[in-house]
Amino acid sequence: MIPEVLPELMRKDGVVAIATLGEDGPHVVNTWNAYLAMSEDGKLLIPAGYMHKTEANVARNPNVVITVASSKVKGLYGPGAGCLIKGKAEFITSGPEFDLMKKRFEWLRATVAVTIESATQTW
Amino acid sequence: MIPEVLPELMRKDGVVAIATLGEDGPHVVNTWNAYLAMSEDGKLLIPAGYMHKTEANVARNPNVVITVASSKVKGLYGPGAGCLIKGKAEFITSGPEFDLMKKRFEWLRATVAVTIESATQTW
Repeated sequence: MIPEVLPELMRKDGVVAIATLGEDGPHVVNTWNAYLAMSEDGKLLIPAGYMHKTEANVARNPNVVITVASSKVKGLYGPGAGCLIKGKAEFITSGPEFDLMKKRFEWLRATVAVTIESATQTW
Repeated sequence: MIPEVLPELMRKDGVVAIATLGEDGPHVVNTWNAYLAMSEDGKLLIPAGYMHKTEANVARNPNVVITVASSKVKGLYGPGAGCLIKGKAEFITSGPEFDLMKKRFEWLRATVAVTIESATQTW
């Protein structure tokens, strides 16, 4: 279900975009590919330093659309690859998924845990 | 109105995310920072190869939210910078804004011209 390119993208320099639906339309926040992790049960984990608007949006509507891309990974059409992930996000402030990320990112205030519904290589 | 970091981001390796609102929620498509251009009247120009879903969404609701980020530009909190752009998008298939981009990108089928309403450095 997870495309092979995703773990590779997560090791390379690149930008993640996390889109949620706010009351006034889509909202987008970014992080770095290398900040992502996978939980043992296959959730995508994202460290949240700020992301307050994303948190408020997710509380109303948990659906997230995430892109992970890097010019440093060979993609479907040559140099550069990208992956589109859809799922449901939750902000977690305790427990193993929080602790795992807090160990890596001292500054995080929450872990965004995304239950992946689909993940597709787009490039 | 345009943050100084944006032209710098457009010269560096990085990822652009373009979010629109579809009937089933937000949609996101990516391009590379270096593919962006500015028109003489300050529109953000994006080459569209595919982007069919984005085009359909924009036809219903022209509001777009765009992030431009790069780890190669010094940002507000150290290495890595990002910019959040909000505006209204239009798919253009003729005229100077199309020709300008077609000259650079032989594969493009349309130029997405974004009238910028706000542009903020976020990182």
